[in-house]
This record gives sequence, C-alpha cells and structure tokens, in this order.
Amino acid sequence: MAQVYDRVALIGLGLIASSMCHAMRRAGLVGEIVGYARSSETREIAREIGLCDHVFDSAAEAVKDADLVVLCVPVGAMEAVAREIAPALKHGATVSDVGSVKRTVIDAVGPYIPDGVHFIPAHPLAGTEHSGPRSGFAELFDNRYCILVPAQNADRSAVDRLSQLWVGMGSKTDEMDAEHHDLVLAVTSHTPHLIAYTMVGVADDLGRVTDSEVIKYSAAGFRDFTRIAASDPVMWRDVFLNNKEATLEVLGRFTEELFALQRAIRQGDGDHLHDYFTRTRAIRRGIIEAGQDTDAPNFGRSNPRKD
Amino acid sequence: MAQVYDRVALIGLGLIASSMCHAMRRAGLVGEIVGYARSSETREIAREIGLCDHVFDSAAEAVKDADLVVLCVPVGAMEAVAREIAPALKHGATVSDVGSVKRTVIDAVGPYIPDGVHFIPAHPLAGTEHSGPRSGFAELFDNRYCILVPAQNADRSAVDRLSQLWVGMGSKTDEMDAEHHDLVLAVTSHTPHLIAYTMVGVADDLGRVTDSEVIKYSAAGFRDFTRIAASDPVMWRDVFLNNKEATLEVLGRFTEELFALQRAIRQGDGDHLHDYFTRTRAIRRGIIEAGQDTDAPNFGRSNPRKD
Repeated sequence: MAQVYDRVALIGLGLIASSMCHAMRRAGLVGEIVGYARSSETREIAREIGLCDHVFDSAAEAVKDADLVVLCVPVGAMEAVAREIAPALKHGATVSDVGSVKRTVIDAVGPYIPDGVHFIPAHPLAGTEHSGPRSGFAELFDNRYCILVPAQNADRSAVDRLSQLWVGMGSKTDEMDAEHHDLVLAVTSHTPHLIAYTMVGVADDLGRVTDSEVIKYSAAGFRDFTRIAASDPVMWRDVFLNNKEATLEVLGRFTEELFALQRAIRQGDGDHLHDYFTRTRAIRRGIIEAGQDTDAPNFGRSNPRKD
Repeated sequence: MAQVYDRVALIGLGLIASSMCHAMRRAGLVGEIVGYARSSETREIAREIGLCDHVFDSAAEAVKDADLVVLCVPVGAMEAVAREIAPALKHGATVSDVGSVKRTVIDAVGPYIPDGVHFIPAHPLAGTEHSGPRSGFAELFDNRYCILVPAQNADRSAVDRLSQLWVGMGSKTDEMDAEHHDLVLAVTSHTPHLIAYTMVGVADDLGRVTDSEVIKYSAAGFRDFTRIAASDPVMWRDVFLNNKEATLEVLGRFTEELFALQRAIRQGDGDHLHDYFTRTRAIRRGIIEAGQDTDAPNFGRSNPRKD
C-alpha cells in the first residue's frame, strides 16, 4: 500500500496509539512515526520497545512538521493538549483524535485549531481490557469500524486521506455527526461498560457471598462482565463525564426495561420472560453474520488451566 | 480412569447432557449411556449422531436398570420428570440433576424419590450460548466447578461416587447448601444474565439507533453482552421463576449501585467514578489467577472475518 502521510505524531501512547504504530508499520502507511506521552515512565517504555521512530519530551515538539497529529489521550485531557500543540502545528496538517465521545471533544479541541489546519475527529471502535504502550498489536483494528466525524464544511481530500489511513490499518470507515455518534456509542459501549462495572462492584460488595466464591464460580456468566469492567478507569471516567446526556438517556431506558423484567419475575410471568429472552437471540445472530464476533462457544476461548 | 457407574441415564439431551456423554466417554467413566428427550426431533438427532448407546422413547424406560440418573431438563420440567421416573428407579440407584437452581429443584424432585434411592442434586458451572444435542463437547467441564448439594443425611459413599464422576469429566467439585448455592449463583450468573438480556433488549428497542448500527458497532463492548443474551430462553425463564428471592435481592443491590453511579455522572463526580472503576479491576485479576478465564485480549478471540 502506498504511503498516506510522511510524518504522523501520536500524542498519548496507550493501547490505541501503540496499536496504530504496529498497524501503520504493518502496511507501510507512513514515513515516520513520532510520539509523546505525559508520563516519563510511558515515554521510557516506548523508547525501550522502539514503539515510534522518535519519542519527544513535549507534545509541541512532537507535532512540529507532522502531517497528521492524532490525539490519543483520555477525553478529559484533550483540551489541554490542543492548547499546547496549537502554535506548533504545520500549515496544511490534519489533527484527529481517537476519543470515545465526539461532541465534547469537538467543543474542547476545535477552538484551538489554527486556520489552514484540518480538524477531523475520529473514533476507532476497537479495544481490549489492557492498557499502556506495551498492550498494542497490529490486528486491533482489523475488520472493526472507525467512525469519522468531520464538520460539514470539512476538506474532502483531507477526510479521504484520513479514511485511507484507517482502511490501511485494517478498519472499515463510516461517517456520522457527533450527536448521533455519541448516542450510538452510549448504546453499544458506554452503557454496557457502566452496567458491567456496576455488576462487578455489586459482586465485590455483597457480604454474604465471598470474593473467592465470586472468582471460583465466575464461569457461569459473570466473568464476561469482568473483562469489560477491567478497562482503563481514567478513560472511562472521562467517557461518562463527557457523554452525560446520551448515557443517562440510555440508562433510563435500561432501568425501565429492567424494572419490567423484575416485576415479571416477582409476579411469575414466565411468558413475558420467555418472549424477551427469545427476541434477544436474533441480535447475536446479526452480529455473527456481520463478522463482528465469532460463533465459537464462549468466544472460542479455551479453559485456561487444568490443575 | 476406572469405571464409576455401570449404566447412566440422561433425561434431557441438550448442551449439558450431550457434553456429559462426550466427557464420560473421553475418560471411560461408565459402562453404558442411555438417554431420553421429550422432543422426538431431539431423540432422532441423538440417534443419528450416536450420542448415547441407546435412546429410549420414554423417561421411565430409560431409567430402568440405571445406576445413575441425571435430570438434564429445564428447572420447570423437573417435577413432571421425577413423577414419571420414580416407579421405575432401581433400588440403590442415585438420582442427580444439573439445574441452575437448587432449592426449588429439591422441593420439586425430593418427594418423589423412593426409599433406597439416593438423591444428590448437583450443578456444573459451565455452559455456552449454544443449545441442543449437537452443541455438546467433551471439554465443557474441564477446570470448571461442579457444586454438589447433598442433604445433611446423604449417603457419603453415594456422594463421593458422584463427585468422582464429575472429577473424571474434568471438573473440580465443591459442596454447598441449597440456599447458599442459589445466592452465589444469583450473583455470578442469574443477575448478569438478566442484565445482559435487558441491555440487548434496550439496544433492539431504541428507535433512534438502528439494529444495523448496533450490530456494526457492537465490538465496542456490547457484543460481550449478546453472547450471554443468546442462551436458551426456556432454561433462563425457569431459572428466574425458580430463584426469585435471591435474584430480586441481588437486583435490588444492583439498581442501588447503578443509581449511585448515575447520580455521579449527572453531578460530574469524577472521583466517585474513577474509584469505582479502579476497584473492579482487581476481581478480574483474581479470576485470571484462579484459572477461570484467559488473560488474552478480548478472550483471545480473533477478528472473525475480513471483507
């Protein structure tokens, strides 16, 4: 595949940025990758494992001469980074991000983008429960959607170029406006994460069931929740603080439905339960047919250890 | 491994029973496996794939001469089966079950067990989102707990023999009383399943986000929920109808915690969210260390398809 950008600067070197490094290199998409992370420990690790071609000690230095700057920091840190890098951005460069929320990121970053620089927010729908510069891998984005959220008057050639980069990293791309993105993600990601965190917290809290029982008997369903509840706490705090309205709306619907099922249990209404549980099977089928998950039992994981 | 029972009869031939067939054969644990299923279609499939040594057309015929009878039917069907097989049970035989709820199964089945027959309820904590006689596989129980729930006056040698069978099938065994079992499972399995069903139902319902969007963008977290929400609807209906009190208790705790997090989101209380999300990571670590799940990102599943 042809080179899409000469020089890409990644600000923040966690799971997404480190996966981008591997994915861009796998396909030879860029000339040079430079990076910056706020924590000196992260910068040291990135240097040690040769994650980027160069790791700078400031964000402003890192973005100088970059054709593409990608903000890979928690949503709550976007504004400070944008303020810091703005004066150093190259004319004609593109600034993008990978934040899980789009409206507040656009509001926070947009005002700092100088004339002559393109701002094209994006969100790759991919992740794992691991974090940090060592957690990245080239396949993370394969077959996953990356949603681009360009302004209506965005430069089409700049949008297409960014899309080309994501396709080169293995993704499919879609475009959406910020409000719709935030609602869709509240349904497919933010509310499920909040619920998983809550369920795991309850299990940990319930004095009459010990933690060791929860752990030993987790294979009955609970362990699937613990995977998503092990995700990065700072990232997720910022998601909820910044996608408040949509998350609260979906949560409202969720508790409404949960109460209806709770009442069916209390009243012994088996038909209501059976109908509900039958309907939800179809969605799983759709996800497997769309190639977004495996049909192998238990995700194809093997039973980890025999002792 | 030595043979544990001469003849085992499985009543119901779904995921658990069919996995037991494969697991018992793998280790040569029994002389003969016979079976029965209510649906003639299931019996035909079982015969076609050679699941058991013999498939009978009635439960009473199947249990005759069996040293171990295992009820592998939904919890709500246990009583009718117990009534039907009771007169045909062999003196000295053991009756067990694999139901996800223990108190109501004991109350439903116990009264029909004749003198001279051992009744030892059990629950293997293993499953997948698939069901039916073709869904079984020998490895399902490997490294998973099977909880035995014998009465206080149960015959120890009969309990030990059943435990030996489960260990031979790859499980670890524990003993517990019925009430504690039902509470532990309400936490580790029943409530998580109800919540997953609810979240998937909400996603399907929310008119402003289309089903195709939910499906395409599911990899952001939601797809983990759809796996457990694809489980057998009849089985799960019966679980909730029969573990009402414990499920409602845990659900009460769940909504309490969820409301606290919801308020933290509404009030912008980032510290509360961050602390909560940090605490839940430790449980995941415990599950991985206990060998009950894999540490591979996203359960080690690969991205299913590239198109």
